[in-house]
Amino acid sequence: MKRVCVVGCGAIGSLYAVHLARVSEVWALVRREEHAQALNREGLRVSGAHDFHVTLKATTRPDELPDCELGIIATKATQVEDSIALVGRRFDKGAIISAQNGLGCEEIIAAHTLGYVIRGTTFMSGTRHSDTHVQYELDTATWIGPFEPSGTPYSMVKETAELIVGGGLKAEALHDARPAQWSKLIFNASVNGVSALTGLPHSPHFADKSKFSGLGNLLHDLIDEGKRVAKAVGVELHEDPWEMNKIGAMTNHPPSMLYDTRHQLLTEVDFLSGAIAREAERVGTPAPMHTAIYRLIKGREASWSFADENRAVAAHGKVH
Amino acid sequence: MKRVCVVGCGAIGSLYAVHLARVSEVWALVRREEHAQALNREGLRVSGAHDFHVTLKATTRPDELPDCELGIIATKATQVEDSIALVGRRFDKGAIISAQNGLGCEEIIAAHTLGYVIRGTTFMSGTRHSDTHVQYELDTATWIGPFEPSGTPYSMVKETAELIVGGGLKAEALHDARPAQWSKLIFNASVNGVSALTGLPHSPHFADKSKFSGLGNLLHDLIDEGKRVAKAVGVELHEDPWEMNKIGAMTNHPPSMLYDTRHQLLTEVDFLSGAIAREAERVGTPAPMHTAIYRLIKGREASWSFADENRAVAAHGKVH
Repeated sequence: MKRVCVVGCGAIGSLYAVHLARVSEVWALVRREEHAQALNREGLRVSGAHDFHVTLKATTRPDELPDCELGIIATKATQVEDSIALVGRRFDKGAIISAQNGLGCEEIIAAHTLGYVIRGTTFMSGTRHSDTHVQYELDTATWIGPFEPSGTPYSMVKETAELIVGGGLKAEALHDARPAQWSKLIFNASVNGVSALTGLPHSPHFADKSKFSGLGNLLHDLIDEGKRVAKAVGVELHEDPWEMNKIGAMTNHPPSMLYDTRHQLLTEVDFLSGAIAREAERVGTPAPMHTAIYRLIKGREASWSFADENRAVAAHGKVH
Repeated sequence: MKRVCVVGCGAIGSLYAVHLARVSEVWALVRREEHAQALNREGLRVSGAHDFHVTLKATTRPDELPDCELGIIATKATQVEDSIALVGRRFDKGAIISAQNGLGCEEIIAAHTLGYVIRGTTFMSGTRHSDTHVQYELDTATWIGPFEPSGTPYSMVKETAELIVGGGLKAEALHDARPAQWSKLIFNASVNGVSALTGLPHSPHFADKSKFSGLGNLLHDLIDEGKRVAKAVGVELHEDPWEMNKIGAMTNHPPSMLYDTRHQLLTEVDFLSGAIAREAERVGTPAPMHTAIYRLIKGREASWSFADENRAVAAHGKVH
């Protein structure tokens, strides 16, 4: 039986953990001590599209974690560096899947392990009801493929997909995972940025091209720009992000970056529009709109501490 | 003695009214009844760079307004249409200055009067302490010139500038006011849009180009794009908006659009980035960044009523 470690048990991490615990020994590495205790005491339950209960091992202490054949990094992109720095070497003889949104996490993971790195893009979704209960909603696939610089053999990717499928989730092994990753990247970067800056959830506005000011035009332009960058980078897309946007715009779903900006939490923009802007810069193709979105969101993040500084000055009297 | 009507007495309107009342018969047309009553009862005081008190006439009723030789429209750009529709014909034998930010108000005014329209761009600033007290801060000029389609003679522009100067303000008559108007347009559109979307006042961030994510790069790109549109339209700029931005970035001044978005008030974006986007479209030159800023701000405005609709649905139970 393989030993698998899921790093980070939000909705996506919990879905991997609960399903893989049926076919492997699962360790969950989490941040909060009471989260680890609850998982060790009560196990983990999934409801919704699937319904069952498993036991697993959980810890907050990297030094308690044994060597594992497989790691799944399921933290936010912004937390990958801190997480993998502590546990990367536990996977030196195995493989690690990056399951984050966006682009750039594989490079961070590869810098902290001798193991093989696997590009992962997941389309499944769920809601976390408690530390020990996750609801499975969109029963859609995780696409995985080799991270090219770490020379991950396709046979290992295939074996990993089979393990995930064995646990009851959908997964597909690809020789090249970038077409899927970039499709989701362009979709996510465009929708998250516009949502966070306007305050709108992924609503019908995002597909409205009926007048010049309509946000549908902006989304269309952002997605077109993303496609041009993908082409310049040499990636052929797996799906059309504009079609993904049209479907999503019917859901009124609040994207994660809208949640983050509302709660003044560091966003994943460095891995979304920021990644498109950087890739465009690298290959020398223009990406003015994603670059603008990137800088606006970074400005928004800066406004939170700037407001605090201003308030601190006001509280102590004006200094000039 | 000339009769002058100032339409709208915020900070800028009050500054015109108080100074012109020293050399002409001033009528103030305001929206709130208590504002008119206070002005009629107490007159208007200016402090700061200038310090004096005047009496004037004020009303909320367009039908009480006599015919005037000069009108100064000093409402927000978003209120010009509603204001001028009621009083435009009072200036049929005179002239009207548009003192709004941005581009497009002259056309609206011209549609409601037979009088001559004057393009105005003001750089003065003040703070309104009460209905009857305004503080004069930046003692800088108002630049005026003919609105080309209404065939305003330059002699009339010159006479108007002399009247304003006679009242104690700075004013300059120009044969072509578009270079000044476009300089301020590009500056204002760029700074207001970025401020409203990031939540930052006009702070040092706006000139920071030290790293790739720096907002100084975004401001520089927005201003460059504005310059390209001005050139395509055939306008040579009077001042470099980037230099204006560098100076403003030292002030931590909250631009009006930041105030508007914080208070969920309709912004002037249609007359700022929206005007640049429309002019670019008209002359067939690309302006992807101002167009994006325009659509993002319109999306932000849409989010206020969308949130209300969503709350209303939540309050009455889910409808699906």
